[in-house]
Amino acid sequence: MRPEIPIFQPKDPDYVERVRASFARQQIMSLIGAELAVVEPGYTEIHLPHRPEITQQHGFIHGGVVGTIADSAAGYAANTLTPADTSVLTVEYKINLIAPADGERLVARGEVIKPGRTLIITRAEVFAIKNAQWTLCALMQQTIMAMQGKAESAR
Amino acid sequence: MRPEIPIFQPKDPDYVERVRASFARQQIMSLIGAELAVVEPGYTEIHLPHRPEITQQHGFIHGGVVGTIADSAAGYAANTLTPADTSVLTVEYKINLIAPADGERLVARGEVIKPGRTLIITRAEVFAIKNAQWTLCALMQQTIMAMQGKAESAR
Amino acid sequence: MRPEIPIFQPKDPDYVERVRASFARQQIMSLIGAELAVVEPGYTEIHLPHRPEITQQHGFIHGGVVGTIADSAAGYAANTLTPADTSVLTVEYKINLIAPADGERLVARGEVIKPGRTLIITRAEVFAIKNAQWTLCALMQQTIMAMQGKAESAR
Amino acid sequence: MRPEIPIFQPKDPDYVERVRASFARQQIMSLIGAELAVVEPGYTEIHLPHRPEITQQHGFIHGGVVGTIADSAAGYAANTLTPADTSVLTVEYKINLIAPADGERLVARGEVIKPGRTLIITRAEVFAIKNAQWTLCALMQQTIMAMQGKAESAR
Repeated sequence: MRPEIPIFQPKDPDYVERVRASFARQQIMSLIGAELAVVEPGYTEIHLPHRPEITQQHGFIHGGVVGTIADSAAGYAANTLTPADTSVLTVEYKINLIAPADGERLVARGEVIKPGRTLIITRAEVFAIKNAQWTLCALMQQTIMAMQGKAESAR
Repeated sequence: MRPEIPIFQPKDPDYVERVRASFARQQIMSLIGAELAVVEPGYTEIHLPHRPEITQQHGFIHGGVVGTIADSAAGYAANTLTPADTSVLTVEYKINLIAPADGERLVARGEVIKPGRTLIITRAEVFAIKNAQWTLCALMQQTIMAMQGKAESAR
Repeated sequence: MRPEIPIFQPKDPDYVERVRASFARQQIMSLIGAELAVVEPGYTEIHLPHRPEITQQHGFIHGGVVGTIADSAAGYAANTLTPADTSVLTVEYKINLIAPADGERLVARGEVIKPGRTLIITRAEVFAIKNAQWTLCALMQQTIMAMQGKAESAR
Repeated sequence: MRPEIPIFQPKDPDYVERVRASFARQQIMSLIGAELAVVEPGYTEIHLPHRPEITQQHGFIHGGVVGTIADSAAGYAANTLTPADTSVLTVEYKINLIAPADGERLVARGEVIKPGRTLIITRAEVFAIKNAQWTLCALMQQTIMAMQGKAESAR
């Protein structure tokens, strides 16, 4: 029998507010115009409208910006499952840029694959949406570290 | 005998101008305040001063921004070696965030490891400089694709 | 609308025989005892029984062996979709070893995510099966290069 | 000033014997014919002669085998720096296969980049040696976890 898709139970009942407050402190997100659209157990979505300021030399959204929203979407997916007194850090990620980030907006979907106590393995997909058509433009695999007893402080 | 460190010979005598013009078209670079400080055969450096607008929730420069300058530094290192009629695309990269990007500025150093005809393998290191002390904060390994016969156009 | 899961159409009607013949030439597979159990369009499975000869220092199957079957499963998934005169090469892969490879056997499932003309992006999951329980033990993301006009020869 | 190359000081005076004993328990190494040729602080080398049994369909050493010796070389480089009561696990690695593993033997050189308390970041290069010529055939970047208080037992 194949394993079922896990149903994650958050340990912190206030995980939505906690994750949203942390996202609000990531000033880079407001600089590029990214929004945390969905926060669910083990899953988040970041949406990013196209703007000339975030493009590369071909006029598409820069691969590093694609990586930025993929990194944050998957990192916050991990953060939904950690206790209230635990913050998260990205250890590393690997991203394939599969198609140009060519669209009116991008949607990054981050999900937890394996929620370990110290390390959390996640994945993200980024889609470019153009004329209501979704194109997969990036695929990411990531390792997150949970810092127990180090609640994230509002600075 | 171990192989010598390769001395790269650019195929395009105007590679510096070409690479600098491309960088100038990456609008994200001026949005975050990054500068292309060094362009040499198979090597570039991008410098990025700390600014609150590019930080994450702990006040350090966001890992996605670190990835952005590492991606561009290594991609342009590849681009120094391609012919004038060839543009480059990032296929994928993998980055370890080793220490917080905590400093007055970051220096990303991109270098070519293996310049293939179609695929170019590169590496980048990112340092955070604080009180004249350099700390390695990220390590990246990247695959670049050379698009022959597709010169990058000034849009 | 989210994109549908792609239904892949092989270009080579004899893809099963071609892929199986190539697998049979990978002598390492018979050395470690791996079997190509499933070959479908854009998908393959490699099965590997536990044997002491392929273990690491803790008695579990070595992570490099896990990587070997993940690499081959995903590479052959790509190979099911290439024309008869095209062979494939692994450009790179990234693998997370999520749990010890502790079981009577491993199942590596490779699948194509994006079948490009030159580059094919794939993914693999490896499960350890113990007492009929499946545990995800590795997750891989991979880039494959299609070498057009270079049919693989029976040596 | 650029940082100096770190000089690592092993915490366990018997690190060479400990690492060699662990390698001897990796049965896969004797199956493929790999030898731990060099053990130094933060550095190891694994040598692997070419044999038909470890090849892929083109007659070169299989990429998974290249990954296996790169993984072990870098993992043992990390292990030279851990205390006697600490064992190591591979969290993940990413490897670029740069050239065919075509030679009479391979040399994998693993080195520690950043020895953290919990996570150790390493790198490996694999060379194929043919007629006394060294060709870089793979480049790896890896994350290792140190399991404190869990000495590796002779099983």
